[in-house]
Amino acid sequence: MISIIVLGTGNVGTHLITTFLDAKNVELVQVYSRKEASLKFIEDKVATTTKVNDLKEADVYIIAISDDAIPEFSSQLNFKDKLVVHTSGSASINVLKNNSNKGVFYPLQTFSKKHIVDFSTIPICIETEKEKDLQVLKKLANSISNNVFLIDSEQRKQLHVAAVFTNNFVNHLYKIGYDICKKHSIPFETLHPLITETAKKITDTNPAHIQTGPAHRNDTKTIDTHLKLLSGEQKKIYQLLTESIQKTYGEKL
Amino acid sequence: MISIIVLGTGNVGTHLITTFLDAKNVELVQVYSRKEASLKFIEDKVATTTKVNDLKEADVYIIAISDDAIPEFSSQLNFKDKLVVHTSGSASINVLKNNSNKGVFYPLQTFSKKHIVDFSTIPICIETEKEKDLQVLKKLANSISNNVFLIDSEQRKQLHVAAVFTNNFVNHLYKIGYDICKKHSIPFETLHPLITETAKKITDTNPAHIQTGPAHRNDTKTIDTHLKLLSGEQKKIYQLLTESIQKTYGEKL
Repeated sequence: MISIIVLGTGNVGTHLITTFLDAKNVELVQVYSRKEASLKFIEDKVATTTKVNDLKEADVYIIAISDDAIPEFSSQLNFKDKLVVHTSGSASINVLKNNSNKGVFYPLQTFSKKHIVDFSTIPICIETEKEKDLQVLKKLANSISNNVFLIDSEQRKQLHVAAVFTNNFVNHLYKIGYDICKKHSIPFETLHPLITETAKKITDTNPAHIQTGPAHRNDTKTIDTHLKLLSGEQKKIYQLLTESIQKTYGEKL
Repeated sequence: MISIIVLGTGNVGTHLITTFLDAKNVELVQVYSRKEASLKFIEDKVATTTKVNDLKEADVYIIAISDDAIPEFSSQLNFKDKLVVHTSGSASINVLKNNSNKGVFYPLQTFSKKHIVDFSTIPICIETEKEKDLQVLKKLANSISNNVFLIDSEQRKQLHVAAVFTNNFVNHLYKIGYDICKKHSIPFETLHPLITETAKKITDTNPAHIQTGPAHRNDTKTIDTHLKLLSGEQKKIYQLLTESIQKTYGEKL
């Protein structure tokens, strides 16, 4: 049995709390938040506190607060021989300023409080300073997910950039497609199967192997037609991504 | 019963042929290709020809050849009172130069010969000049798909642009994410759930409502960190898409 305390009740914290409550071989000992009101949802199921000095004993302290607040907050955790981890995708393990052992427990998924999340398929990227802590964190991660990866801080930084491209930027392209459809009274539903199919395909294929479209086949006539239909931001993005695809595959031809 | 002839055995043609062979209330009368060898796969199941003059009678002639070849090819189809359609996403209905009635039958999906395609979920965008032809084409489309949309040539041009953003460009961003992972020995699998989840989400949400990431929350510190990790094309794309997201959501704040 691993005992844990979750510190923070934002999106990530909330999902971790509800998931760990039901996890086997894990005991959620306490939940911390600086705001009393944020603890309401859980106070009849587990001990809560708004004071760092009232934190109980546990094997692992999971900090789920905003990146900027981690150094200052973790410096207040003065106990020895405990494992303190943060859950950030972009912060290094070194932003933790507690005296005891450090680690990272980063669930790679976008969370919103509204949606129920099935943690079993969410990749959890873990990192520790000490080998013995790694075993604890691996066990803890495996208790809620089937996808646990050992990713160090340097890799995690890169992974975060890759996630920005494949998630945040991709969603912005979806938005542009949505806007074009809306403007011309076309149901966005016409694009759904294409979108889900492409996302599905790259889970077993190198995306480079399934690239298609006017830029890929260097179809300058269609590209020119499209550019004439676009303006502003959309046009700039079309141009840059087209150039990038042409360069990528042009060199290989 | 609608009788049809498919002209062309490329990706789209091949998938239409195999799908219509099994479709109820549709009779695939003949398949045309200019190359004898391209007809081998189907010649024991249906009549084939390499000569336009040997084309049989049918209600609908479905041209599935490259966009550029449609005008010249269709001008050779001299029969009267038949419906001739092309299957292109980017060509207008007016590129058809046959004497008889014209239409468009555009399945909106990326096809590769290798993958088996379930047409039932593929959106088919149809257009005709005459109302009576629209009923025929609608019936034909419904015989293989549950997603049939009336989209005119002007809308289809815009739809094609939207598909380039949401499919071709999205796939290029997947490739960039893949490359970053590979370079830093990170399993690309860590990103799969995020990618499929985002694609799934936008099938019932306006993408603008689920935008996240450093650009969206104007987290300039993380953006600067990311820009330092990037160079060349990747950096340019990161910058432009970040700016675009900032402008989009900055104005709304």
